Amino acid sequence: MSACSQHGAHAARLAGLRALLARRNLAGCLVPRSDEHLGEYVPPAAERLAWLSGFTGSAGLAVVLADRAVLFTDGRYMLQAAAETDPSLWERRHGQEEPPERWLAQAAPGARIGYDPMLISGSALARFASAGLEMVPFAAAGNAGPGAERNPIDLLWADRPAPPLAICRPHPLAFAGEESEAKRARLGAALAAGGEDAAVLSDPASINWLLNIRGRDLAFTPVALGFALLFSDGRLSLFMAEEKVPPETLAWLGPAVTVAPPSALGNALAALSGRRVRVDPAGTAVWFADTLTASGAAVSAGPDPCRLPKACKNETEQAGARAAQLRDAAALVRFLAWFAEAGGSGKETECSAAARLLAFRRALSGFAGESFPAISAAGEHGAIIHYRASPASNRPIRANEVYLIDSGAQFPEGTTDVTRTVWTGPAEPAPELAERFTRVLAGHIALATLRFPEGTTGPALDALARRPLWDRGLDYDHGTGHGVGSFLSVHEGPAGISRHAEAVPLEAGMILSDEPGFYLPGAYGIRLENLLLVQPTEKNPADGPSGKPFLRFETLTLAPFARRLIRPELLSPAALAWLDAYHTRVRNTVGAALSAPERTWLETETVPFL
Amino acid sequence: MSACSQHGAHAARLAGLRALLARRNLAGCLVPRSDEHLGEYVPPAAERLAWLSGFTGSAGLAVVLADRAVLFTDGRYMLQAAAETDPSLWERRHGQEEPPERWLAQAAPGARIGYDPMLISGSALARFASAGLEMVPFAAAGNAGPGAERNPIDLLWADRPAPPLAICRPHPLAFAGEESEAKRARLGAALAAGGEDAAVLSDPASINWLLNIRGRDLAFTPVALGFALLFSDGRLSLFMAEEKVPPETLAWLGPAVTVAPPSALGNALAALSGRRVRVDPAGTAVWFADTLTASGAAVSAGPDPCRLPKACKNETEQAGARAAQLRDAAALVRFLAWFAEAGGSGKETECSAAARLLAFRRALSGFAGESFPAISAAGEHGAIIHYRASPASNRPIRANEVYLIDSGAQFPEGTTDVTRTVWTGPAEPAPELAERFTRVLAGHIALATLRFPEGTTGPALDALARRPLWDRGLDYDHGTGHGVGSFLSVHEGPAGISRHAEAVPLEAGMILSDEPGFYLPGAYGIRLENLLLVQPTEKNPADGPSGKPFLRFETLTLAPFARRLIRPELLSPAALAWLDAYHTRVRNTVGAALSAPERTWLETETVPFL
Repeated sequence: MSACSQHGAHAARLAGLRALLARRNLAGCLVPRSDEHLGEYVPPAAERLAWLSGFTGSAGLAVVLADRAVLFTDGRYMLQAAAETDPSLWERRHGQEEPPERWLAQAAPGARIGYDPMLISGSALARFASAGLEMVPFAAAGNAGPGAERNPIDLLWADRPAPPLAICRPHPLAFAGEESEAKRARLGAALAAGGEDAAVLSDPASINWLLNIRGRDLAFTPVALGFALLFSDGRLSLFMAEEKVPPETLAWLGPAVTVAPPSALGNALAALSGRRVRVDPAGTAVWFADTLTASGAAVSAGPDPCRLPKACKNETEQAGARAAQLRDAAALVRFLAWFAEAGGSGKETECSAAARLLAFRRALSGFAGESFPAISAAGEHGAIIHYRASPASNRPIRANEVYLIDSGAQFPEGTTDVTRTVWTGPAEPAPELAERFTRVLAGHIALATLRFPEGTTGPALDALARRPLWDRGLDYDHGTGHGVGSFLSVHEGPAGISRHAEAVPLEAGMILSDEPGFYLPGAYGIRLENLLLVQPTEKNPADGPSGKPFLRFETLTLAPFARRLIRPELLSPAALAWLDAYHTRVRNTVGAALSAPERTWLETETVPFL
Repeated sequence: MSACSQHGAHAARLAGLRALLARRNLAGCLVPRSDEHLGEYVPPAAERLAWLSGFTGSAGLAVVLADRAVLFTDGRYMLQAAAETDPSLWERRHGQEEPPERWLAQAAPGARIGYDPMLISGSALARFASAGLEMVPFAAAGNAGPGAERNPIDLLWADRPAPPLAICRPHPLAFAGEESEAKRARLGAALAAGGEDAAVLSDPASINWLLNIRGRDLAFTPVALGFALLFSDGRLSLFMAEEKVPPETLAWLGPAVTVAPPSALGNALAALSGRRVRVDPAGTAVWFADTLTASGAAVSAGPDPCRLPKACKNETEQAGARAAQLRDAAALVRFLAWFAEAGGSGKETECSAAARLLAFRRALSGFAGESFPAISAAGEHGAIIHYRASPASNRPIRANEVYLIDSGAQFPEGTTDVTRTVWTGPAEPAPELAERFTRVLAGHIALATLRFPEGTTGPALDALARRPLWDRGLDYDHGTGHGVGSFLSVHEGPAGISRHAEAVPLEAGMILSDEPGFYLPGAYGIRLENLLLVQPTEKNPADGPSGKPFLRFETLTLAPFARRLIRPELLSPAALAWLDAYHTRVRNTVGAALSAPERTWLETETVPFL
């Protein structure tokens, strides 16, 4: 019943939006999931797409026309989009296989399409414009215009939550590893070397990394939301609600950082007239470049200058990542030991199991929250790649089924993200299921054991993790790995191990996930995820000559892979040797934090195969 | 001595070029290897780069400044460039690791740099312009201007050869598989669907494929050089010296194809005023777009419309490829059998061995020449990736060394390209050498046995062939595979298996090489190359569900891999099974064309490992 009334509300919202579009003489509009920081996680005040459509996934774009409304998302979210949106209102399409601009150019050639310039990047907007559409901003460059020009959703959304105003605090040097002043001097000098006077920073993760601050504006990413201008002399203007910045933080920021409210941003950009300012065309809302250009500044298209340095963790952050992983591993292994008994009992549900894991994590020192909403998925729910158990979807975990748990934690030392897939028993799993599990594991190990020359990009490695599945005509519809922040976002660019990731060379210090999977809709999902740290290799005399330095991965995550689902005869001797060594390492490092029964379970689970 | 006098000539040429540049108030100029078709193989009349620098490789770009001259090439040619050019005149750089525009922007920021608009693509020119250089065309758009505006090399090059004028002949339907009229109708309709009135075709391979004609203007690629305009109604204007088109060919072309001399091109483009014309920004000289724009036509940037359809061989071409490979295999296997006796005798040289292979090929019915200059490389010469034995470099092939032979043939049915690496004996090869050979073979087999989902691109597969080498810190500085034409160019786009290849999905009917290698400069080179044909897979019930169709590779090339260099214990059981099955296939298919002693050798060489 509540689902019905929600669908009724969504029909009314869509009708309201269409009425406003018609009044503005627009054939349609874009409603992206992103907020003005174009990030993956957004505060409730920015959940416009969910308010309009019901879809709550972390990536999506709605295209609303007078007679059609289409929700574009990707392979991770196709099933979730179908479950959350009303088919009588919404078509759902795969935005990677069918880009929205291409669909829209065919459905409404040359049409007038409205967009909010604070919610779309210059690159994304250019794709729609290149497809021949007439793109009309809701508000002109500069400060927002009168009400009629505002984002129509904001006009319709009566009970829209207030923006978050959590306090922003120092991120001590013991975790950050480099003074903000040194970071700003380094990045400012690089701007100067490129003839740039300043750079727009619109990604809160970049600003929080650069200033060594953290906040609590988002549920899972410990950032304070804001904007910034970094100048080539290392000074920085921070645009953030002043009540979020207490005296302690102001002192920590130091005299070279000024703080002003976000409403001062338009004037600050206008003051850059005649200067050359870098704006990330893909990562920053197009409003910034438009406003700078309108003010007489020269816009220099280039990546967010924090993006690559932030991704390459320094020695302190690397040591922190290892410490965070070891601490987090105790919670996950205790959970897995508990689940081995309780999981198939029929008494637990997806929600109760997730709560149990969270309780184990809450007992960890320094635990600062989950790094994303845990995916606790039994049976067929595991095939919904980014499933989130809710009171409506929650179901008991039953005997003899597959259970997938993908979760992570935030610690000041670092961010974790780990997925394990287990079998509840007591019967033995079907050989076909175990074969598929083992092929996913073989792909995981293929990446974990890789050595590769400097200059290799993430997209070039994606197929290595897929091959064991490809050999049987199987695949998974998501990337193999994403970058992970250091007490920041669990999804961090620029590097990723995916055909859709940017082709940036992997560099020492980057942390990436390794998470191949296999999904059988309506039946089960398998995903096996560890985090890997890119490391230089030592020269091995047996390697012979090579002009290029090589890199390797250090596995950071410590948790056993489900023994009952492994068919060792399908793994190569080298892969089995890696697995045995990894399990030995898990035993030796995590064991000390466990109770005697937990340790016994871990020892049984990790008996060597060879 | 002759080398010295050549270097003296090159110094004088460089000085002459610099004098002309100074007179035109240019700080420098670009001298690309390409001709006005931007192809890989060029007639002697277009060998400007070789005339200026001495470098004869098939890919390169010279940047000449008043005080520095730099030759940019790639990993295949770095050693050759060093050997062929005078270090007192030329610096050599790796253009993929250090793009020429980036080097030039640092060496001469903002400088006035001359270029020939007939010899550079719009995309390449834009990279120089974006780097802040002032790019000055030698001749304005439209017909060539007066002498002072012409390419200075053409003014200096007194004994420049005449352009080729070979006769152009029909390529019968028994080989082409589809009528030109059908191809033109199909491609013209696609232009019309995209709102385009015409397309510029500047790649002779595209024109020869589209018109089902072949010529002899180039030494290794059986094309007639020319330009064309394809119209959306399927008509075509061919710009080709009229003496190259005899009545028989005119009749074959039919009434919808008009022939005019290349000098009529400027006026023909001017007549497109007001029309929308597709020009390939990466594959067509920028002169075309400039001339169209100056004439009031709308230039639509898009790929050469023949590129993808030409790459996807039809059933007739696929059958032809198999027939050509089988015929060619007889020559190569006879050569390898002969070499097993003669190679280590000390009586043969690189040139005599290549001549022997060519003699075996000349005996084949339908043989229409080599598809590229054969690489016959003993010992250390094998490490020069595109080595070509010349009278000056030729050396005896000695006992107990590595010999590499990379060669190919043109047949009306198809084009071949194959590389084998052998050991001359009589001693056993060093275990380390055999290990490296076996790792190259493992990489070759990893690709040959691959199944992959539709939509997968070539760059995504490159690492699969490198992994066995990467595992030991080894690599090779060239792509793993390139597309191959059908009685056309041995290097054909758009697909390739290389990090530098375009990210186009592989499609059924494409022919690609699979040629990993390993090179130890000063010692030896290993490369193992077969051609693979992309094929759909049959559905295997054991595969389980998968939303996507899968593709696989059919190995076309038939020749044994050198048994003495294989260490079977380093290959997986699956790889050994593939190798045994492949060798059995070689014995069963090629054996019939051999003499009894040759067949005996082949049988010994291909005894199963398992």
